[in-house]
Amino acid sequence: METSRIRIGLLGCGHVGAALVSLVAERRGEVERRTGLDLEVTRIAVRNTALDRDVPVDSAAFTTDAAALVVDPEVDVVVEVMGGIEPARGLVSAALAAGKPVVTANKELLANHGAELYGAAEAAGVDLLFEAAVAGAIPIMRPLRESLSGEPIKRVMGIVNGTTNFILSRMADDGASYADALAEAQSLGYAERDPTADVEGFDAGAKAAIIATVAFGARVVAGDVYHEGISGITVADIEFAADLRHCIKLLAVVERTTASDGGSQIGVRVHPTLVPLDHPLASVRGSFNAVFVEGGAAGDLMFYGRGAGGRPTASAMLGDLIDAACNLRQGHAASIGVLERARIAPIDDVTSAFYLNVEVDDRPGVLAQVATVFGEHGVSIRSMEQEGLGGEARLVFITHAARERDLRSTLPDLRSLDAVRSVGSVLRVIGD
Amino acid sequence: METSRIRIGLLGCGHVGAALVSLVAERRGEVERRTGLDLEVTRIAVRNTALDRDVPVDSAAFTTDAAALVVDPEVDVVVEVMGGIEPARGLVSAALAAGKPVVTANKELLANHGAELYGAAEAAGVDLLFEAAVAGAIPIMRPLRESLSGEPIKRVMGIVNGTTNFILSRMADDGASYADALAEAQSLGYAERDPTADVEGFDAGAKAAIIATVAFGARVVAGDVYHEGISGITVADIEFAADLRHCIKLLAVVERTTASDGGSQIGVRVHPTLVPLDHPLASVRGSFNAVFVEGGAAGDLMFYGRGAGGRPTASAMLGDLIDAACNLRQGHAASIGVLERARIAPIDDVTSAFYLNVEVDDRPGVLAQVATVFGEHGVSIRSMEQEGLGGEARLVFITHAARERDLRSTLPDLRSLDAVRSVGSVLRVIGD
Repeated sequence: METSRIRIGLLGCGHVGAALVSLVAERRGEVERRTGLDLEVTRIAVRNTALDRDVPVDSAAFTTDAAALVVDPEVDVVVEVMGGIEPARGLVSAALAAGKPVVTANKELLANHGAELYGAAEAAGVDLLFEAAVAGAIPIMRPLRESLSGEPIKRVMGIVNGTTNFILSRMADDGASYADALAEAQSLGYAERDPTADVEGFDAGAKAAIIATVAFGARVVAGDVYHEGISGITVADIEFAADLRHCIKLLAVVERTTASDGGSQIGVRVHPTLVPLDHPLASVRGSFNAVFVEGGAAGDLMFYGRGAGGRPTASAMLGDLIDAACNLRQGHAASIGVLERARIAPIDDVTSAFYLNVEVDDRPGVLAQVATVFGEHGVSIRSMEQEGLGGEARLVFITHAARERDLRSTLPDLRSLDAVRSVGSVLRVIGD
Repeated sequence: METSRIRIGLLGCGHVGAALVSLVAERRGEVERRTGLDLEVTRIAVRNTALDRDVPVDSAAFTTDAAALVVDPEVDVVVEVMGGIEPARGLVSAALAAGKPVVTANKELLANHGAELYGAAEAAGVDLLFEAAVAGAIPIMRPLRESLSGEPIKRVMGIVNGTTNFILSRMADDGASYADALAEAQSLGYAERDPTADVEGFDAGAKAAIIATVAFGARVVAGDVYHEGISGITVADIEFAADLRHCIKLLAVVERTTASDGGSQIGVRVHPTLVPLDHPLASVRGSFNAVFVEGGAAGDLMFYGRGAGGRPTASAMLGDLIDAACNLRQGHAASIGVLERARIAPIDDVTSAFYLNVEVDDRPGVLAQVATVFGEHGVSIRSMEQEGLGGEARLVFITHAARERDLRSTLPDLRSLDAVRSVGSVLRVIGD
């Protein structure tokens, strides 16, 4: 096989960028043996060229002029690892317009401006690849785009945020409080000082939008995603869930559903969820990620691995880089296909089983009153456990699948019962 | 997007073939919307055209002339679902030589003649895709070929035979004997009347050869694979393993190792293995499959799903079909890359931890004698459990990693001790 030299221009050189430069250098010989591609990082745009970066690249490769890099005829493929929307958006657009394939790990950019950028790549006839943007090292974008492109996908559920999975795992395994588990995640560098993006589900929401776009061939953006975070989850919730043989995970859920007028719509949401202990997602612990796909023909599939970290992310980007370089050599480009305008299911229309815990006075007839309220709203109870607490009792319910709107309208009526002291957590439940 | 009509010629129309014809018809509209490819099965070669097949294809599409089908100018892509080596090998070669992409699920063909066929596809500049040949619906070939093409893969371990995983799961979960679990698998249609290919590891061995070829870019054939089956596994072994917090799985293992002369070699084997209960592979139950990849940069990855069945297999083939059709339209072909000649590690050189159970006379000093024999052969003990059985005792050992040859040479010396009544199962152990 004749060797093609591929010159890589890198936008940004932080943790992931530096890991990618090292991995490219490390794997150069083996990649050339197997593919005939000689990969080399030749240009790196950074804010400050004076900073000492421990990467195996000549210091002359560094520049502060990112705009020049993306149109440089001496650059064959552009890799974007700056993060954030601007200037990444403008630079990626310019690179694509200049006919250069782009590899990016930027979930925020894709979740907000994906359709525009996929369209630009399609128009330019070059690749825009983004395996690392969702679930780090786990190959999930390419399988969804290619292997499963003919599959009637019903639902995808992902543990796509390692920080929250770490926190929930520590609470479940060691009985740590939410605050202590969060502090530990921060001290280990898994959580930011301001953890909002992780714990409130915004990070997982951006990934949900990208998964929905690729899985369903539809334009879904971050703003379409409904989200609830994990900051309200207590150790008590985790213990009640365990008694019911469930664990609690923050899931990104995307699914095709049918609207009341019979049309097809797409549900996209992120929330803490009770997962049965024998479900494959229940075994995903610590900072690992996993994406569970419910196919109509393929059946259930799950993809598991590291969701973050320099080398795992760089590994996913190197796979994209080789793919983009192969395609460039052949004058070919991968396509995300035609994206339809998505009709997003309002959260009120979403159907799911629910977990509720309700504190009541411990006297005869109370359960009947509570059950009557559920019945009036068309919410059917699958299981109930009662625990005496002295003068009061705790009722833990799991409902059959119910419409969000019906469940929501049940809550004020429950609270208005004299015998009901409080309604605690209300969480969705998957399975069966 | 302009629509391209793609005419599919099918070789064989059994269980998987019929499922594929139905799935293509079912998904035709949606595939066209997303990719601009209008897929249609237009020719089907079978042995007996008179047989009534419940597939949505005109009866005129059927022919007995497979040789004519593969060179028919009215066929754009050939799908092979006949199984077996001949005539599949000749027909696939002829199709490739005629410039037609081929999609196949034929593990036996690829494990024995893969290199020749990949070379023929490369020479003709067309695709030869085979996602369904290993682990059914699970996208694993494409991720290994593409997403992980730059990844320094250390080891891949797969549960790639659903029949044996079903049998071992029944033995573990319900205490069924091997014979009863096998009979149940046969009555459910999971096992053949002659179950040799499954239970002795030949089926998993063929898949191991294909995985090794793709993961390491090396020519590995079925004959290179060392295998041991599960017919010797007893319920007692499974119970001892459970006491040690392990389960027993039939694993296909492929790994890169270093030979005594410092050269790189590839180990390829199939055998029953003790898997720690907290390892992701331990949660793969019943007839499910999973492939666990240990990457040098990506870290651990796992791919889980249905390993067999008409619709799951058809789903994987439809993904390949769309890919092949897209590539055909663009005049492009996927490449497996350059395959090096593999140096296969002799089984004697393989290093692994071992589980042994040894029945001995229950008297003082026996453990010291047994331990001395291990020590003389350089085999180090990681853990030991002793169980009294009246006049005798059972010693269950797990060793530290030891060379197969050293462990093997330990066994006759153990058996020659007066106090040793028998050495029961000797099984490999993964983890740590």
